[in-house]
Amino acid sequence: MAEPESKRVKTEYELTYWPDIPGRGEVVRLLFEEAGVPYADTAKGEKAVRTVLSYMAAENVGDETNPPLFAPPVLKHGDLVINQLPNILLYLAPKLGLGPASGDGVYHLNAIALTILDGFLNEVHETHHPIATAQYYDDQKEEAKKRAKAFREERLPKYLGYVQRVLDGKKSGGGKWLYGGELTYVDLVLFQCLDGTKFAFPKTVENLKKGGEYDGVFKLYDAVKERPNIKAYLESEKRVDYADGIWRHYPELEEDEE
Amino acid sequence: MAEPESKRVKTEYELTYWPDIPGRGEVVRLLFEEAGVPYADTAKGEKAVRTVLSYMAAENVGDETNPPLFAPPVLKHGDLVINQLPNILLYLAPKLGLGPASGDGVYHLNAIALTILDGFLNEVHETHHPIATAQYYDDQKEEAKKRAKAFREERLPKYLGYVQRVLDGKKSGGGKWLYGGELTYVDLVLFQCLDGTKFAFPKTVENLKKGGEYDGVFKLYDAVKERPNIKAYLESEKRVDYADGIWRHYPELEEDEE
Repeated sequence: MAEPESKRVKTEYELTYWPDIPGRGEVVRLLFEEAGVPYADTAKGEKAVRTVLSYMAAENVGDETNPPLFAPPVLKHGDLVINQLPNILLYLAPKLGLGPASGDGVYHLNAIALTILDGFLNEVHETHHPIATAQYYDDQKEEAKKRAKAFREERLPKYLGYVQRVLDGKKSGGGKWLYGGELTYVDLVLFQCLDGTKFAFPKTVENLKKGGEYDGVFKLYDAVKERPNIKAYLESEKRVDYADGIWRHYPELEEDEE
Repeated sequence: MAEPESKRVKTEYELTYWPDIPGRGEVVRLLFEEAGVPYADTAKGEKAVRTVLSYMAAENVGDETNPPLFAPPVLKHGDLVINQLPNILLYLAPKLGLGPASGDGVYHLNAIALTILDGFLNEVHETHHPIATAQYYDDQKEEAKKRAKAFREERLPKYLGYVQRVLDGKKSGGGKWLYGGELTYVDLVLFQCLDGTKFAFPKTVENLKKGGEYDGVFKLYDAVKERPNIKAYLESEKRVDYADGIWRHYPELEEDEE
């Protein structure tokens, strides 16, 4: 079932995601930006929402080459169309020089990516929508306060501790980057997910940073931010501002009640 | 960074998971059982809990070969130690003859597996623990009722509809199996996850089945259950009964209140 990759070498990458929020799509963008590889981004076009909805439509059963998809982000590369963020990262990493193409490193990096996405993306989304994704935040605000408290006090420190352990381990190769002594895509995943979590819970993250237990994690965050391509991207108009997406800032979710 | 796989050919696989619940570990077990490949299972040993906890310990930073882990299941194969269920499946599938080793199929199957695990495993866990994993169910029962209602009415039909779309698509190869016209690991993932969801929400799943919209999904479930190796395993004492794990049955989570 192997397919020669060469036929896609000159094909453009196309990312599809919701417009006007960074979200899961932003993690994919950072890989392209760091690698300096051009990509089309349907979120920036006029048909952004329509493109997302056509992929998710109940009558869409895929095509000759691809099974149907559940939700964005979606990556199109030649005739291949795939979704699921960790899966898109897995596909892109070796092609963009941000991870190995085979061997143990593939699975080590995939495990690290999945864990960071669980902690700093999926669980952050749950803090403002603990009852139902399809309902408004205001209709689940009281439950959100409880979930956010557990996230701030238990889950976030636990995930930060995990990332610090990865940096402290021998396989990080010195503790500057997460794996193998050089920047890989999981460092970019960590940067975006921690950046979003900082936006959502600024006081909480600042206090955890001051505590000093996760210095390596915050140094890594700063190091990614200073990568020339990333820095230029973050300062450009291409970078999407946080809004009502996965990483939202509701001040009441950082307040402890009596 | 590629590593010759041959050196691990004769090494035994070792699965580590919590004892006495099927959970995420059960999905891994089904792959070994279908393939007829022997594996050690620390959950069945005396040191089961201790083994899990040693992997998750705050002072465990991994070793020369592996980064540290966040949570079980854990797969040990030779000197490789990896975690994260979708990652373990990705590693095992080609070795057990349950998925391609390279090419587009790797990413198609990974996306299907991730989506099924999101819908029928992760979201089921959220129904009884919508506020805090570390707190008792009884302390979040009211919130659980609300979350479970949204799961039963919106999320579960949406995920069943997705699986049916995959079966209806050309890439399923006829609609008996999810991908490529033959059984792959994602069919086993679907079986275990739907089996657990049936245990947790028996009336809901029965009603959805009766509706007739997802006939292909339930046929696939039955077809996996009748695979000789799977059938023998399910009838054996090795199969772990459902209990207070991911898939739990609380009758009140199926009841609509005024």
